[in-house]
Amino acid sequence: VGQPPFQTDRIYETTPPGVVTGLAWTSMGGSTLYIECTAVQQNVRSAENGEEGGGSKGGTLKTTGQLGDVMKESTTIAHTYARAFLQRKHPGNTFFDDTALHVHVPAGSTPKDGPSAGCTMITAMVSLATGKPVRPNLAMTGEVTLTGIVMPIGGVKEKTIAARRSGVTTILFPEGNRRDYDELSDEVKRGIEVHFVSTYDEVYEHALGWDEAKPA
Amino acid sequence: VGQPPFQTDRIYETTPPGVVTGLAWTSMGGSTLYIECTAVQQNVRSAENGEEGGGSKGGTLKTTGQLGDVMKESTTIAHTYARAFLQRKHPGNTFFDDTALHVHVPAGSTPKDGPSAGCTMITAMVSLATGKPVRPNLAMTGEVTLTGIVMPIGGVKEKTIAARRSGVTTILFPEGNRRDYDELSDEVKRGIEVHFVSTYDEVYEHALGWDEAKPA
Amino acid sequence: VGQPPFQTDRIYETTPPGVVTGLAWTSMGGSTLYIECTAVQQNVRSAENGEEGGGSKGGTLKTTGQLGDVMKESTTIAHTYARAFLQRKHPGNTFFDDTALHVHVPAGSTPKDGPSAGCTMITAMVSLATGKPVRPNLAMTGEVTLTGIVMPIGGVKEKTIAARRSGVTTILFPEGNRRDYDELSDEVKRGIEVHFVSTYDEVYEHALGWDEAKPA
Repeated sequence: VGQPPFQTDRIYETTPPGVVTGLAWTSMGGSTLYIECTAVQQNVRSAENGEEGGGSKGGTLKTTGQLGDVMKESTTIAHTYARAFLQRKHPGNTFFDDTALHVHVPAGSTPKDGPSAGCTMITAMVSLATGKPVRPNLAMTGEVTLTGIVMPIGGVKEKTIAARRSGVTTILFPEGNRRDYDELSDEVKRGIEVHFVSTYDEVYEHALGWDEAKPA
Repeated sequence: VGQPPFQTDRIYETTPPGVVTGLAWTSMGGSTLYIECTAVQQNVRSAENGEEGGGSKGGTLKTTGQLGDVMKESTTIAHTYARAFLQRKHPGNTFFDDTALHVHVPAGSTPKDGPSAGCTMITAMVSLATGKPVRPNLAMTGEVTLTGIVMPIGGVKEKTIAARRSGVTTILFPEGNRRDYDELSDEVKRGIEVHFVSTYDEVYEHALGWDEAKPA
Repeated sequence: VGQPPFQTDRIYETTPPGVVTGLAWTSMGGSTLYIECTAVQQNVRSAENGEEGGGSKGGTLKTTGQLGDVMKESTTIAHTYARAFLQRKHPGNTFFDDTALHVHVPAGSTPKDGPSAGCTMITAMVSLATGKPVRPNLAMTGEVTLTGIVMPIGGVKEKTIAARRSGVTTILFPEGNRRDYDELSDEVKRGIEVHFVSTYDEVYEHALGWDEAKPA
């Protein structure tokens, strides 16, 4: 009865920089969803003589995908946080200042809402800014505050089932959902590696810092 | 009873650069539709001394044709993607930065919505930017994500019938609709050449790259 | 029973540049209507020292006359098309870039809608830009696409009756309405010269090119 509101098929074999796999759910069940982040225009700020180079400006963000108000705000929070995060990790990188961003969430006609894609959106933006793809077969879900604290979300069971169905092997869940996950049957959890995260720094570590050399 | 919501008559004998034949459908049946893309103003960016040259700026996009929210977002996605695509194919071509675009979908009083004209819109924009017309008698339908993945659409049967009725001889369908098409009767499919596409690169190849010399 | 929704009285003896006679209809009957186009401000772009000279900018367009959504979009389409048309006919004429336009459709309190004044609007704009008045006693009706294709409209009989009642002697109808017109009784058609047009170029020829020397 009814269909999940997000595409359940995996549309990316591997995700390029700027694209991150998230997890969504409704009363109908869970599904994977993709946050796609791309540059409308780059180096907008550094245009000479004050000319602007288009209707898009550095530091702007447009969103599509029939996002509800909460999810739109979530992209705004992600944009602010990602900019601060990048400044901390890579002080010389002015990507967010110089770039007009566009965030889309397929499928284009499915209404979506909620704050739980926050960490997914930040990761998509940081991935694009650094040119690094996310660790393969990893999905994440979690609301993020403006200072990078990861808050618990709903639908842990449905999201876990959906992740497995899409070939995901690693899930990042908020620390606040550890108990929800522990209560799931072994059947549901089989073959899935889970990390519980409290701050965005930990999300980054698992998703984008996975191939970085660790300090000795 | 009732009329298809889009004009069923072919209004273009041959489509000029910027105009592409799409396929639409409703519960009433399918029909062809045309995406018309034109430049409101060009070389807007290069105006000297900061003068702006009008209410339209390079990089902007206006839409008409009673488009619903999803279809309006679809033009935004198409604009972002087309810009990135052109930059990849023709690195020196700054058409989208320098041009105020206008996308119209006749008939002007017929409400339209949905994401399935995504590939048609991108193609209209790229066609205008490159000055190349689309391969004659070709129609296309498919939602496109912000990174160029072509996603399946509805109404394969109705669209195929409408395409034939309008003299279309080649249709581009999303790979995800291959099964839907295969199930159609030979009667419906007669005289139609179909290509199934997974990415926008393949759409381009069939629609705009058809007369390009292939590397040996 | 009720009144026609547009004024049926002829309010212009002769129409100055920028004003064009159109034809409207509803279930109550047909009527003439006037598209009035005027410049709010000219030479806005060339203002010295970057000062703008007012809240209006070159290339902008405002509309009044209780126009519905479709008719508003129709003025936008007309504006884009008229600009491109002028650039083709008079490459040095930057009127539309430099001018803030205002389109009004009397009577100001009568709600109006529909796409069939498209050709009338383009003609009003081009007439203003070139300073040429439209051929006397000529009325026109037709939806126009963004590339200048004239599409059929409704109410051919009612519009023809209204045109005669207002002293119109020449009507431009879309080619797609030829059959509708042919089916009218001779009584209705008496004294009216009709031209059927497929593209805006033909509209221009009849309405504004009527006194131009033809190439030998």
